[in-house]
Amino acid sequence: MLSAVLKSLSVYEAGEQPQDRDFIKLNTNENPYPPSKKVDRVLRKINYQKLNLYPDPDSNRLTEELARYHKVAKENIFVGNGSDEVLAFCFYSFFKQDEPLLFPNITYSFYKTYASFFDIDYKTISLDKKFNIDFSKFLQQKSGGIIFANPNAPTGIYENIARIKKLLQSYQEKVVVIDEAYIDFGGESCISLLGQYPNLVIVRTFSKARSLAGIRVGYVMASSFLINALNRVKNSFNSYPIGTIASKIAICSLRDDEYFNKTIKKIIKNRLYLCEKLKELNFKILPSFTNFVFVTCKDFSAQVLYKKLKEKKVLVRYFADDNIDNFLRITVGTKSQIKRLIENLRNILSNP
Amino acid sequence: MLSAVLKSLSVYEAGEQPQDRDFIKLNTNENPYPPSKKVDRVLRKINYQKLNLYPDPDSNRLTEELARYHKVAKENIFVGNGSDEVLAFCFYSFFKQDEPLLFPNITYSFYKTYASFFDIDYKTISLDKKFNIDFSKFLQQKSGGIIFANPNAPTGIYENIARIKKLLQSYQEKVVVIDEAYIDFGGESCISLLGQYPNLVIVRTFSKARSLAGIRVGYVMASSFLINALNRVKNSFNSYPIGTIASKIAICSLRDDEYFNKTIKKIIKNRLYLCEKLKELNFKILPSFTNFVFVTCKDFSAQVLYKKLKEKKVLVRYFADDNIDNFLRITVGTKSQIKRLIENLRNILSNP
Repeated sequence: MLSAVLKSLSVYEAGEQPQDRDFIKLNTNENPYPPSKKVDRVLRKINYQKLNLYPDPDSNRLTEELARYHKVAKENIFVGNGSDEVLAFCFYSFFKQDEPLLFPNITYSFYKTYASFFDIDYKTISLDKKFNIDFSKFLQQKSGGIIFANPNAPTGIYENIARIKKLLQSYQEKVVVIDEAYIDFGGESCISLLGQYPNLVIVRTFSKARSLAGIRVGYVMASSFLINALNRVKNSFNSYPIGTIASKIAICSLRDDEYFNKTIKKIIKNRLYLCEKLKELNFKILPSFTNFVFVTCKDFSAQVLYKKLKEKKVLVRYFADDNIDNFLRITVGTKSQIKRLIENLRNILSNP
Repeated sequence: MLSAVLKSLSVYEAGEQPQDRDFIKLNTNENPYPPSKKVDRVLRKINYQKLNLYPDPDSNRLTEELARYHKVAKENIFVGNGSDEVLAFCFYSFFKQDEPLLFPNITYSFYKTYASFFDIDYKTISLDKKFNIDFSKFLQQKSGGIIFANPNAPTGIYENIARIKKLLQSYQEKVVVIDEAYIDFGGESCISLLGQYPNLVIVRTFSKARSLAGIRVGYVMASSFLINALNRVKNSFNSYPIGTIASKIAICSLRDDEYFNKTIKKIIKNRLYLCEKLKELNFKILPSFTNFVFVTCKDFSAQVLYKKLKEKKVLVRYFADDNIDNFLRITVGTKSQIKRLIENLRNILSNP
């Protein structure tokens, strides 16, 4: 009864979302701070009586607000039901090519899943010894497109814009998707390169820096030609991806930059504090430009640490994949969450 | 730069959603009545501070509530971002087969789009002269699956459960999807057949009878084997299709059956009134079990009527497709909306 494709489907495993609120959740890179208070005001003003109507299929108001915010044209914006949906549409629209898609061997693990879902051939390119992306290796291959996250996940490592510009300069035939889910935590966005490179696609989300993982909104910035393709694909799949309430909340979040910047500063400060404390415990920490740190402990198995922390009601993310199976990805929480994490780590490490 | 598949994509055209609130919207089969007042109470209680967290990827609470409501097991329910997304996942999961998918030549026009999107071969089977689905013709073909809407759209015609049971009795190798978007307006659901036919899939939506098109929730009922396949497909596309707020609203709507039944009775009453008035104007009306009527007027082009009504700020749906290009699909509105529609129709017809 099932389609043959289902046999080979490599399903993505999302981080645990326990309903038990006792857990300290440092496993899915949620923002530990709430969204702007303006979200609350918007929620109070929603007229439930109008929920009988379909939302605007093109989410025009949200698209316009994003265009204004990023100082691009409305025609350069595409919105979807979380950056995961938006990424799926990118794979379908740009990467079903004769040559394989390229991405780093360590990156967001959903990319492999999308490729398998849409039957897209891919090759992974090894990171260098310092876990940086080696763009020169990408150029040595024939390829049908490139995707990577910047900052990369789960490494947290940021590639500067000059290196990316060099890649784009030599790669203009096929699409380059840069997943900037974590760019707001210290990196510089590639938005400024959009005008110059019509093959550049930038993916963003409201789930991380904007503290709105619960509403499911993500978006793309690219040339109008590529945005138009994404719209055609969306209209072949689901005409109304974003509900009325989610749109309104996303819009009002964009209108409170002061709060947004304050939250980011707090997280960067907490990240420094977390790194300090982890160093004291002899962890090796990759340099992070995100709201998480990717760490390894010489003396202790990452998998065992993950399990022992979970017993203590502290959730961090462990990946059983090659190359990174002795690392933990730990979300930067509030200061008190960090303290509880460190306390638990200290106990586990001193009583192995 | 684009994937080759994009060349042949046949995009679905959703009904217009004008931002101009002066329009009487009788074009997208929205419920003219608001959702349950309990939705408002739930909205007031939402804690915006928790929107920083991802929703439960499996929407367990909503799934449990739906299982309770329909008296099936939780393992028989799959939820998604509107029935459009849920249908897309059904096409991918069940219909990528060696033999073509079959559906009626007049039915929800999105089915063709999904088939094109996922590169699924299909054949359409003509309706009979009375616009009923001719199930015997479906059985005469080799096929990789069957999908139809019951009641059908845009005809509004309902096939009784005995005829469907006969189809299922002779067709057990591949999946049969029944899109019951409009079943609550007078038809009998095929839920009672689920236990007997593990290849039966029923698709439902919160957008019509539940007056919640704005929140984007749809779902599937089927055997746990098929639901499991849908979950794997979902987890290869978007782990968190339904936001926290949408889930909560959907749950509370299910808990107000009294209001739900009252609203449906009102719409059925309005449908009778609308049919009466249209008959007075010499329209031919297909027998409707939905919240819309599919009508044709001997003396007047449907396309011209559509345009003239739009000038008068009354939106109805016109399809330029073969076989139905002299029909209009008119949503059953409130009594005052119907009066304004009829008044305008009377003027147009008497001053051609």
